Amino acid sequence: MIRYDLGMNEEKNFIVTEDQFDQDHLGKCEAIMVLGNGYMGIRSATEESYTNEKRDTFVAGIFNRFDENEVTELANIADVIQMTIVIDGEVLDLSHGDVSDYKRQLNLRTGELTRSFTWRSPKGDLLSFVFRRFISMDELHTIGQQINITAHNRSMNIKIISGINGQVNNSGVQHFSEGDKRLYEKKFLQLVQTTTQSKIDVVVNTAHHFKCQEEKQIASLIQMDRRKIYYEYDFELKENEMITLEKISNIYTSRDKAYECVSLKELKTISYEHIKAASEEGYPELFEKSKRVWENEIWANQDIQIESDKDYDQLAMRFAIYHLYVMTPMHDNRMNIAAKGLSGEGYKGHTFWDTEIFILPFWSYTNPKVARSLLEYRYLSLEGAHKKAKENGYEGAMFPWESAWLEDGEVTPVWGAADIITGKPTKIWSGFIEQHVTSDIAFAAWQYYKITHDEEFMENYGYEIFMDTAIFWTSRLEWNENKNIYEINDVVGPDEYKEHVNNNAFTNYMAHWTIKNAITYYKTIKETRTEVYTKLSQKLDLDKAYHKWITVLDQIYLPQANEELIIPQNDTYLDLKCIDLTKYKNQEHVGSMFKEYNLEQVNEIQVSKQADTMILLYLLEDLFSHEVKIANWNYYEPKTLHDSSLSLSTHCVLANDLGQYELAYDLFGKASEIDLGPNMKTSDHGIHAASIGGLWQCVVNGFGGVRMLGGILRIEPHLPATWKSLRFTITWQGDILDITVLPSKLKVNKKTKKNQVVEFMHKGEIYSCEEEIILTLNDM
Amino acid sequence: MIRYDLGMNEEKNFIVTEDQFDQDHLGKCEAIMVLGNGYMGIRSATEESYTNEKRDTFVAGIFNRFDENEVTELANIADVIQMTIVIDGEVLDLSHGDVSDYKRQLNLRTGELTRSFTWRSPKGDLLSFVFRRFISMDELHTIGQQINITAHNRSMNIKIISGINGQVNNSGVQHFSEGDKRLYEKKFLQLVQTTTQSKIDVVVNTAHHFKCQEEKQIASLIQMDRRKIYYEYDFELKENEMITLEKISNIYTSRDKAYECVSLKELKTISYEHIKAASEEGYPELFEKSKRVWENEIWANQDIQIESDKDYDQLAMRFAIYHLYVMTPMHDNRMNIAAKGLSGEGYKGHTFWDTEIFILPFWSYTNPKVARSLLEYRYLSLEGAHKKAKENGYEGAMFPWESAWLEDGEVTPVWGAADIITGKPTKIWSGFIEQHVTSDIAFAAWQYYKITHDEEFMENYGYEIFMDTAIFWTSRLEWNENKNIYEINDVVGPDEYKEHVNNNAFTNYMAHWTIKNAITYYKTIKETRTEVYTKLSQKLDLDKAYHKWITVLDQIYLPQANEELIIPQNDTYLDLKCIDLTKYKNQEHVGSMFKEYNLEQVNEIQVSKQADTMILLYLLEDLFSHEVKIANWNYYEPKTLHDSSLSLSTHCVLANDLGQYELAYDLFGKASEIDLGPNMKTSDHGIHAASIGGLWQCVVNGFGGVRMLGGILRIEPHLPATWKSLRFTITWQGDILDITVLPSKLKVNKKTKKNQVVEFMHKGEIYSCEEEIILTLNDM
Repeated sequence: MIRYDLGMNEEKNFIVTEDQFDQDHLGKCEAIMVLGNGYMGIRSATEESYTNEKRDTFVAGIFNRFDENEVTELANIADVIQMTIVIDGEVLDLSHGDVSDYKRQLNLRTGELTRSFTWRSPKGDLLSFVFRRFISMDELHTIGQQINITAHNRSMNIKIISGINGQVNNSGVQHFSEGDKRLYEKKFLQLVQTTTQSKIDVVVNTAHHFKCQEEKQIASLIQMDRRKIYYEYDFELKENEMITLEKISNIYTSRDKAYECVSLKELKTISYEHIKAASEEGYPELFEKSKRVWENEIWANQDIQIESDKDYDQLAMRFAIYHLYVMTPMHDNRMNIAAKGLSGEGYKGHTFWDTEIFILPFWSYTNPKVARSLLEYRYLSLEGAHKKAKENGYEGAMFPWESAWLEDGEVTPVWGAADIITGKPTKIWSGFIEQHVTSDIAFAAWQYYKITHDEEFMENYGYEIFMDTAIFWTSRLEWNENKNIYEINDVVGPDEYKEHVNNNAFTNYMAHWTIKNAITYYKTIKETRTEVYTKLSQKLDLDKAYHKWITVLDQIYLPQANEELIIPQNDTYLDLKCIDLTKYKNQEHVGSMFKEYNLEQVNEIQVSKQADTMILLYLLEDLFSHEVKIANWNYYEPKTLHDSSLSLSTHCVLANDLGQYELAYDLFGKASEIDLGPNMKTSDHGIHAASIGGLWQCVVNGFGGVRMLGGILRIEPHLPATWKSLRFTITWQGDILDITVLPSKLKVNKKTKKNQVVEFMHKGEIYSCEEEIILTLNDM
Repeated sequence: MIRYDLGMNEEKNFIVTEDQFDQDHLGKCEAIMVLGNGYMGIRSATEESYTNEKRDTFVAGIFNRFDENEVTELANIADVIQMTIVIDGEVLDLSHGDVSDYKRQLNLRTGELTRSFTWRSPKGDLLSFVFRRFISMDELHTIGQQINITAHNRSMNIKIISGINGQVNNSGVQHFSEGDKRLYEKKFLQLVQTTTQSKIDVVVNTAHHFKCQEEKQIASLIQMDRRKIYYEYDFELKENEMITLEKISNIYTSRDKAYECVSLKELKTISYEHIKAASEEGYPELFEKSKRVWENEIWANQDIQIESDKDYDQLAMRFAIYHLYVMTPMHDNRMNIAAKGLSGEGYKGHTFWDTEIFILPFWSYTNPKVARSLLEYRYLSLEGAHKKAKENGYEGAMFPWESAWLEDGEVTPVWGAADIITGKPTKIWSGFIEQHVTSDIAFAAWQYYKITHDEEFMENYGYEIFMDTAIFWTSRLEWNENKNIYEINDVVGPDEYKEHVNNNAFTNYMAHWTIKNAITYYKTIKETRTEVYTKLSQKLDLDKAYHKWITVLDQIYLPQANEELIIPQNDTYLDLKCIDLTKYKNQEHVGSMFKEYNLEQVNEIQVSKQADTMILLYLLEDLFSHEVKIANWNYYEPKTLHDSSLSLSTHCVLANDLGQYELAYDLFGKASEIDLGPNMKTSDHGIHAASIGGLWQCVVNGFGGVRMLGGILRIEPHLPATWKSLRFTITWQGDILDITVLPSKLKVNKKTKKNQVVEFMHKGEIYSCEEEIILTLNDM
């Protein structure tokens, strides 16, 4: 059972609690309580082992391809967390004996995971355990663990088996060759592993340190096994005695920017020196440093405060911010955010449009440096995008649907789940024909630029992305001789239940938008940024491209609203048969429709996996009238199963825009429950990164009403009925704005003086904020 | 807890029983209850999963090398045994709820594993389960499972998740690329996997079939995951209703001799057709066929009957015979017996001298065809032996210490367990310098030949093995200028606690013996087998080799007994320091000395891992006087820790020879407990194949007193005091002899008429047996 109401005083609504051990749903807490710092993430599997646990340790960017039949994936690194604890011959295992006072808590404010309980073993030994764990936000490589064991009812023999275990793997796939194992100074364990194909060296070190109330004899025996090095400790714990074990570990890799040029031997030495120093410092000190970063650098700047009767909303928001910081490789622009962050093997650590459309707004509005780093990743992966375009017979940059290491290009797997009709695996077409991601990246670059005014980004990366993606789209267009229009046929739009469709509205509009903006930026750089123009001209033959753009632009087919104001999602959608979807709309687990239909059959029904036309109405909102939005909402939402976690937040923001406030709040609630909610199976393969980014959008772009419209900041908040106040911070073109929303009041505080004023729009009027503006909200 | 006293009537002393589920020691029953047919072996992991279980499915000869840092090993094939059973939402797991009437039994007579119990789930559902399982002895590819579930106290919802799981691996190492997954005819599941380096295709098929007391709605949903295809079944089980699930599976590989030349597509079709037919036949029929082979072809010919107060001895003997049949790839002369049979990952499925010295006697004396196939394996692997010789700067055939696929040559890993002093892994020298295996193979060929008179074997394989191995030994000898002798320096003898020793007595004597016999056989073939002589001369330049042999033979240094009649195990052993070994002699687990010493230190102490000089006194027994044997026994046995499972049986046979009857019986008891005994940890990595072969030797060569001495059959039995009779069957030069030993009587029955008489020696006299000879034993 997950509870949310814990935490007192300054920690109120910062604590996620599991108050009963649930062996049947280990994945839930492993994922939603994942620890990390963007460099690495470790699923919060318990120290002791259970069937069906999933132990994953990921370092961002450590990709490997097992063989030609599989795609590259984030490799599961040797585990340091697991420990076997044996009391008088009985293995600590909470499915045996009696457990009381059980509590596992993730402290979002400090990044520490604690677990405490009292256990009566089947033989009758009574002990208390307190486990603590963190991954340092202060220092990329450090992992800390601390275990307190107290014997209650008698003296007992305790055996602890703990070390480094490289036998872990990705659902049966081993990505590492075994390297050296070594014990140094009878204390420091080191294990080296090297990815089999990408040849990345990983060095894992660990050190144990016991703290006892009085001098104690602790027998220790070093053991090595295949891909494993560990200690067996053995000691007597007296009645009422407590012992503390600290285990400090680190991970270093040859992919780390700082160590790219050092030899493996040096990397071993560096990491060994580090573990010596870190273990010397000890858990409390190391944790304190990490906690200070969480407190002073993250929460002090990023916290969103929601005053409400329902504490859960506040917690859900902080849960989102916590995870956004844990999942994002802020330290390295060669890496991006995985669809499951660093919290699970789902989607293999790949990056999707999820980053640009669902997560980047958070970073652009709150920590633009990170947003820029994530966009730079796309720029650095242009090589792979060119490769993909060429392979598909196109020009320019065709970004991969799924992206991993920079040069990899397209890494989407080709085969998926069982087709219940044919008995074969279903072919995954996204990697071939789900092409809108290329516009999504351009859109995100534009959004970042408009929010930040980061000209330097545009000059170095942004303009080129626009030119290159527009070149792709121009080459992608198909001339329809009969209709005298350019079409984009045989694609998958955001709605992946419709494959091989023609003229998906979202895809066409976004392609058009990309080319249109490329034209604008072409003019801009030609006129005002000659150096950039010259550089890009040499690379891309800009003038020729430009002439194509202006030729094709107005002939690109943009599906228009029909008489009922419905924009057809694609050429055929509106003619497909309608069936009663009630059963699937009320489903307990997503994807239930596939128990009865295969994808080919679903393709023939008016049913959508997720927001498709809706997301068009959100991203390019100023192109469509309120009436069109309403009509399309009413048409498409009932046909949308929200089988993708990307769907709810878009609908929430739109519902708010359309004045459906209760529905908006309801959708926010549902979105916030995707990971944090009571369904214990949703997060097994990892948290839903896009949904978590979407949660922030629900609150800031939805209830907070913040939007960037054609370069202008708009703030039109509307609090849910149960909320008393909402306070959040955004950055706008270099200035920090503190925004407070009360049911009938909007307060904008300009905290910094980068610009003399910040202008924003509210209800059609422009306000210039020098220090503070307070507006009355009338529409309550 | 393992019990041994079960089985009534014809099954008396054929049943191994576990009468209490023991989650902490799963490895024990997984290994000692392993099922197999020589083609494949599957550890008897339970259907439901537990932490620390080890699921292994091995097919003999399916070797793969993960990468350059590792050696080739028997690859763990996709699992079909595991099933998840969920009752009203609760996963069947015997560590929860209440278990009663638990019984797991391996029936050695029929090869069937059964497990039955009643389970009260934590929620209070009361059910009975009966699981049955076998691997067909009648047909190489077939695996059968049957599960009966009965609901007792109310109606319940049952969910069964079952299929084929290729996520299993070898302690974290995945040896297979993922191939096709497919469901045929909404019933037959198929998964293809291909070893990554050796490129062997494996096709696994499975089919489920429910049998109900009355018509029943069973919902089924096909699922695919990475390397996995499975069904989810869902149904209601009424109060007092029983349902039966049959799961029939098969495994086919491209290494199968019968399918070497077919395409993967054909292999898929062949295996699919097979599974259709087999699942049509159903469990009872398929099992009946397999059982008939066990009964009529194995036990009817092979059973050893021991009448004794201690039933355990009888069971232990049958346990040994069962395992010898399960572990031996009788179907294919390109394969040999692994040190752990097909029952675990220990020693990576490699073949050692264990086969020739400890297991082959069983086959040579009871089923010579199989013995010949195993010796042909060595002949077929001469290429690897030549390669190894060349790599080491020698000539002829230097057999690998560890052997896998024919051409692999040496496959011994280079690094082993932790060195507690240096903190590094210990280097394993066996693959480099444990060289006696080459003589052991020649010795076994000689023994087989003398027991069977299989001239055809000698002409095609045997003579060549002798010539080739003698050539190796001649090139291996080192001339000692000072002493005017040939030495063999820097070796490891059978005692692996002494590395880099000079003139290990066993090694030198056996090398000398090999060359001496090669000289004899050279003369034989030159004089009487001209064709063979010509063929081998062309291959090996025999005349030149012969001249070397006769030159070196008498100059090979053979360590002689000293004044105390002790034969020095090697040049330095007798000068090493002696320490008090009591602690280690009384150890609970083998290898305890390494908690205090590293191998380098152990090297400097008069302590032996296992029989070394003793095995010399056993194999070349007619070279040494009774007094020398006694003296050496008294000297070496107290220094021998029996840390190798190969040690006890040799000591048992010798003790019997030396008239130490009580000790012999005691050692037999210890040897029989290596796997079957109460120590629950010994068999985790698999059963001890050599020890199991040794058990047969204890009884037939030891208590039964059967020996082949220079080509002559000797029978000098001596029953342990507790035994009332011993009856066993051997083949001698084509005839079957039924031998019955009573405390004061020996009865030899010649059951067949291949030869008119069979001669045997008893107490120095030769008897000619035409039909039956009864002798009185006087020395009781």
